[in-house]
Amino acid sequence: MTLIKFIEIMAILVGAFSGFIEARRKRMDLVGVFTVAFITAFGGGTLRDILLDRRPLFWVTHQEYAILIFVLALVASPLIRTLRQMVSERLIVIADAIGLGLFSIAGVASALDAGMPLFIASMMGVITGIFGGVLRDIVCNEVPMVFRDGKPYAICAFLGSWMFLIMRKLEMPHDFALWSSATFISALRLLSWKFDMRLGR
Amino acid sequence: MTLIKFIEIMAILVGAFSGFIEARRKRMDLVGVFTVAFITAFGGGTLRDILLDRRPLFWVTHQEYAILIFVLALVASPLIRTLRQMVSERLIVIADAIGLGLFSIAGVASALDAGMPLFIASMMGVITGIFGGVLRDIVCNEVPMVFRDGKPYAICAFLGSWMFLIMRKLEMPHDFALWSSATFISALRLLSWKFDMRLGR
Amino acid sequence: MTLIKFIEIMAILVGAFSGFIEARRKRMDLVGVFTVAFITAFGGGTLRDILLDRRPLFWVTHQEYAILIFVLALVASPLIRTLRQMVSERLIVIADAIGLGLFSIAGVASALDAGMPLFIASMMGVITGIFGGVLRDIVCNEVPMVFRDGKPYAICAFLGSWMFLIMRKLEMPHDFALWSSATFISALRLLSWKFDMRLGR
Repeated sequence: MTLIKFIEIMAILVGAFSGFIEARRKRMDLVGVFTVAFITAFGGGTLRDILLDRRPLFWVTHQEYAILIFVLALVASPLIRTLRQMVSERLIVIADAIGLGLFSIAGVASALDAGMPLFIASMMGVITGIFGGVLRDIVCNEVPMVFRDGKPYAICAFLGSWMFLIMRKLEMPHDFALWSSATFISALRLLSWKFDMRLGR
Repeated sequence: MTLIKFIEIMAILVGAFSGFIEARRKRMDLVGVFTVAFITAFGGGTLRDILLDRRPLFWVTHQEYAILIFVLALVASPLIRTLRQMVSERLIVIADAIGLGLFSIAGVASALDAGMPLFIASMMGVITGIFGGVLRDIVCNEVPMVFRDGKPYAICAFLGSWMFLIMRKLEMPHDFALWSSATFISALRLLSWKFDMRLGR
Repeated sequence: MTLIKFIEIMAILVGAFSGFIEARRKRMDLVGVFTVAFITAFGGGTLRDILLDRRPLFWVTHQEYAILIFVLALVASPLIRTLRQMVSERLIVIADAIGLGLFSIAGVASALDAGMPLFIASMMGVITGIFGGVLRDIVCNEVPMVFRDGKPYAICAFLGSWMFLIMRKLEMPHDFALWSSATFISALRLLSWKFDMRLGR
């Protein structure tokens, strides 16, 4: 398995895991747990692709990810309490930060490919990075966390998306721009978590 | 009128009717009653078609259904209490079970036509069958009922979708596979209602 | 700047402004304020274009509007209380009525262009006019205001959309039909506000 495949699976698992936790907190049954996990993992990329009119969707061509979440939902429901104790908060935050970086840069890169203007491309990066969680919260009947906790989450995705766009404008190599911007987002997210930074309102 | 046309109209009316009831419970006005009824009746198929990028949408080419719901919303609002007494719960459950079977199998069949892999096709069947109600609950600011009541509703749609997929893989005739799977879903739903079965959490 | 450009910007600003107010009431941070304002301003037209499968979306080709809302969100958050005092309720209602007329007629006209049947075209007009506010309320975890306050808001959009459709069937000139129908919606909305009319439930 290549590194990028491994990280991709990690990012999807982290999204699904945060969906499991939220769905269980809302006392959902197996159907709810699977659906909310799926929406959290794939909702951001799906919304971006619908807005850009790109098909087939990622999870349609890679049904193995949908099956993976399905199996995990079957297994995870009874085990969720144990799982939450096994997996430390630190590990979740790290994996989530990596996921934010990867999803956001994948989003901005595919929007740039599709010929979007720069600001729209940066928005697509942020949408890909955060709207899985937004849709999860809407389905769970909550005001989306990312819109109200004042933590620099979307901001990290936004800044990193612009870093990618500027590097591409300066004609730096695609892969170098991609990896360094994704790393920048993940690092910024981890730093802001470490020092508990907040946006003013 | 052919049998399938009759059942189709029945399924849409049942969806709309459950939308009427929920919208009235939320004390919505005429605009809300129509919109929620419309979303409940057509939301699942519309979401499937957006995900698969199929156009025109069913209700766009069959505007008579939209007009029917519009007229019913005009009439139903003052009559909803009478209507609920006239129509027994048993009748609603039966019509709803028939609708679940038909919508789900229509969803899985059109996903298979569109070349989707098997698991994704089964998901499209379930989405078509249940997301009308999910979107109704989101618009009405509730956690979707189908995600938390533990009743085997989505599960029936899921099992029946797989029955259809397996019958098609075994090269059984399309219409036979379609009708027997839809009947299977409806029957399973009615049995699980009759015996008040619940999923564990 | 042409008159139509000026009115267009006004309509978008009014949508964004109502998003600002709702997001602040929900104590959202900068990310939430921008997103909710953006959804309120562009949500209706975006949903219509997704349903009709039209791309690119309006705000994708006019990124200046997205940037404008972004800058306003940066500035508005600390100033929102002052802004609400500076701008009288009367002014907001007038601008909102103009926006409703313009958005709705733009919606019905583009649906007619796309060959939609008449009733569906009128629905697209209403969706374009009101779904920005509906999506704002869903994201803010509220039952959509337009579905429950009994005020003739969607009804104005619906009647004006039919006025446009009938004028076009009678082969009146496109621009004349467009402007008179949009004016009709705005005037009807202002009258119904002036006399505090309500729909029965």
